[in-house]
Amino acid sequence: MDTQSTIADRPSVDRIAAFSDGVIAIIITIMILELKIPFRDIDSFSLMAIIREIAGPLLSYVLSFVTVAILLINHHGMIRLAPCATPALYWWNAHLLFWTSLIPLSTATMGEHPFAPGAVAFYGVVLTGTAVSYTLLHRYIAALAKASDRADPRSRFELVLDYVAMTAYAAAAALAFVSVYAAFAIYGLIPIAYFLSPFAGKPTSVKG
Amino acid sequence: MDTQSTIADRPSVDRIAAFSDGVIAIIITIMILELKIPFRDIDSFSLMAIIREIAGPLLSYVLSFVTVAILLINHHGMIRLAPCATPALYWWNAHLLFWTSLIPLSTATMGEHPFAPGAVAFYGVVLTGTAVSYTLLHRYIAALAKASDRADPRSRFELVLDYVAMTAYAAAAALAFVSVYAAFAIYGLIPIAYFLSPFAGKPTSVKG
Amino acid sequence: MDTQSTIADRPSVDRIAAFSDGVIAIIITIMILELKIPFRDIDSFSLMAIIREIAGPLLSYVLSFVTVAILLINHHGMIRLAPCATPALYWWNAHLLFWTSLIPLSTATMGEHPFAPGAVAFYGVVLTGTAVSYTLLHRYIAALAKASDRADPRSRFELVLDYVAMTAYAAAAALAFVSVYAAFAIYGLIPIAYFLSPFAGKPTSVKG
Amino acid sequence: MDTQSTIADRPSVDRIAAFSDGVIAIIITIMILELKIPFRDIDSFSLMAIIREIAGPLLSYVLSFVTVAILLINHHGMIRLAPCATPALYWWNAHLLFWTSLIPLSTATMGEHPFAPGAVAFYGVVLTGTAVSYTLLHRYIAALAKASDRADPRSRFELVLDYVAMTAYAAAAALAFVSVYAAFAIYGLIPIAYFLSPFAGKPTSVKG
Repeated sequence: MDTQSTIADRPSVDRIAAFSDGVIAIIITIMILELKIPFRDIDSFSLMAIIREIAGPLLSYVLSFVTVAILLINHHGMIRLAPCATPALYWWNAHLLFWTSLIPLSTATMGEHPFAPGAVAFYGVVLTGTAVSYTLLHRYIAALAKASDRADPRSRFELVLDYVAMTAYAAAAALAFVSVYAAFAIYGLIPIAYFLSPFAGKPTSVKG
Repeated sequence: MDTQSTIADRPSVDRIAAFSDGVIAIIITIMILELKIPFRDIDSFSLMAIIREIAGPLLSYVLSFVTVAILLINHHGMIRLAPCATPALYWWNAHLLFWTSLIPLSTATMGEHPFAPGAVAFYGVVLTGTAVSYTLLHRYIAALAKASDRADPRSRFELVLDYVAMTAYAAAAALAFVSVYAAFAIYGLIPIAYFLSPFAGKPTSVKG
Repeated sequence: MDTQSTIADRPSVDRIAAFSDGVIAIIITIMILELKIPFRDIDSFSLMAIIREIAGPLLSYVLSFVTVAILLINHHGMIRLAPCATPALYWWNAHLLFWTSLIPLSTATMGEHPFAPGAVAFYGVVLTGTAVSYTLLHRYIAALAKASDRADPRSRFELVLDYVAMTAYAAAAALAFVSVYAAFAIYGLIPIAYFLSPFAGKPTSVKG
Repeated sequence: MDTQSTIADRPSVDRIAAFSDGVIAIIITIMILELKIPFRDIDSFSLMAIIREIAGPLLSYVLSFVTVAILLINHHGMIRLAPCATPALYWWNAHLLFWTSLIPLSTATMGEHPFAPGAVAFYGVVLTGTAVSYTLLHRYIAALAKASDRADPRSRFELVLDYVAMTAYAAAAALAFVSVYAAFAIYGLIPIAYFLSPFAGKPTSVKG
């Protein structure tokens, strides 16, 4: 099995982008598969009983859906900065996809046991891994882009946010053993901060 | 994590379209996964026993398959109107995909308990959310298209149909508690109306 | 929801082709998910026990894998003939995907109960539906291609094979109640005939 | 059903590449679905209990994730060498995808029974099939590329590695009955060798 690094004309990032989209599309969709289980045991099928039964898993799913959707939109913007596909880019990206692929598992665990500290902490551990691998990929792409004189459009706010997110998710995993509600608050606030970040500042490197 | 809003050259809608196709392809296919469960408990494997056993889930699947197929063809036509990808377009689209992703769950619930009003109403609640998020996305794209002088090819019939569908699905969710057959009739009629709509009128804005 | 029929510039078939590929990729892969179940109950894990345990489902999977792979290669060749995407093309294609999406279900049923006539007949019913919907799509595309003066590259052998396959699958569904082995023989022979068909003749219309 | 072999203008390999990406994206993602099962039976949800419970399946998943990721990166580099799509290319590729599609099954089996020689051997049998089908596809593409004067960028190290991998996986399947740890060592070393191979040599044919 040869790798593309020895090929004279470097391939574009299109196939990496398409493959990542495929994996993320599957991840975001299979999370919902976890939601079907409770229905087996219900006798009376009132609409409220259905909603009450799935409230935990459903809220857990909504949270992960928004988190992964933010990851995807940022991945779209980020991958376009890379001038070409390199083996290292491929592996930093695979590293991110690995952690992302654990999200359905941690979502289902937290959804079924929303008040079990271990399950809530596990969710935080997976998101910490995702945030760390995201930041590592971002740093690598930024270095690639800089080497070919492409501007990194990250605002100062967004730059800081990457590190805040990593730290906050790790803290939430520990906090879950004190209060699951504190962890929930962090899991909810980080996506909101990212959602608002496009409106929060100007790009750094375009300015400088 | 940076967003694409700060990037000078706006990306095209191609990656949003491809990602949506991927998610919808998975949704339409995993619905069928729900159908495998009844087979575990059958002793005598006559062909009629198989068909009788899966009639409820299968009809439920056929209905959802057609509904999602219509959503997809209309999504194809609609997304082409957007001149470029914006963060808002991304999020209105993600909102639609979220509701669509609940369809396999509501399809399985109604398929297994076709005469339980709660299950039939739940199906209507999910379709109401899908229809509302579809209309919101459509309105946003129409505004984007208008700003760049692209004609909205919706016929007057189709314009009205969006609002009819939202109202009818919400009504069906309530009606299910009176008669599940009335709800079934609405679930069946809306796709037929959309199926026929291309033949029902001329585009509005091309005329004006 | 508007449809693309009212748009002046007809879209290309690319997005239909990509969506079909996505659905077929999922179908071909989820079939293997059915194979995991028997492992739950095995105590002694000899390699032979594993292979014996999964022989039925595995052979059933191999058969369906080859059948769907042939469908895919022929779909690739066929869809390229269509000069543009039309609503009717979309629906004939959706019709084919619907029947194809039932193949994992019938594969699992036959794999778990390979000697139950009902299960073997059900497999034949689904393949008959797939073959009929394939032929209908092919006829529609051939008409589209003819209208825009594109040659249909089907050989006389392949033309006849479409009708042979439909008839043979329907016959196999009935034959299963007499002998499942006769049905197995037909399920195995049709893919072999298609596999060999590229080598069996010259295109008809290119000649004429 | 006609095949593309009779069409004058040969199609590009793009759709084969995209379809392969789709199948591999699904394979790499559904492996993680196997990991959800143990959670059903756990009473105390300490974080350590979760990690201990899933350690076997998780390590098994990590190993397969890396193995399939290497397959994917090499597939990306390899498929670009083919000047056009031929029926034989399609089938050699389908053969590789068939073996790859068995990896989630063997991963789950080994993950749940990591010390059962049969389960560990089964994992080796599937990887042997994958390595053999990979080498056959590679040889076919190299012949295609040579016929159209494209250089094969494989280094001497990588050329030998294909044959080493096939032999080592087959040996590991047999060794599992002596010591599962010896088999684990081989399953771990082969991906490391491939991971390092881009740095291990210069392309052969570019030199000659």
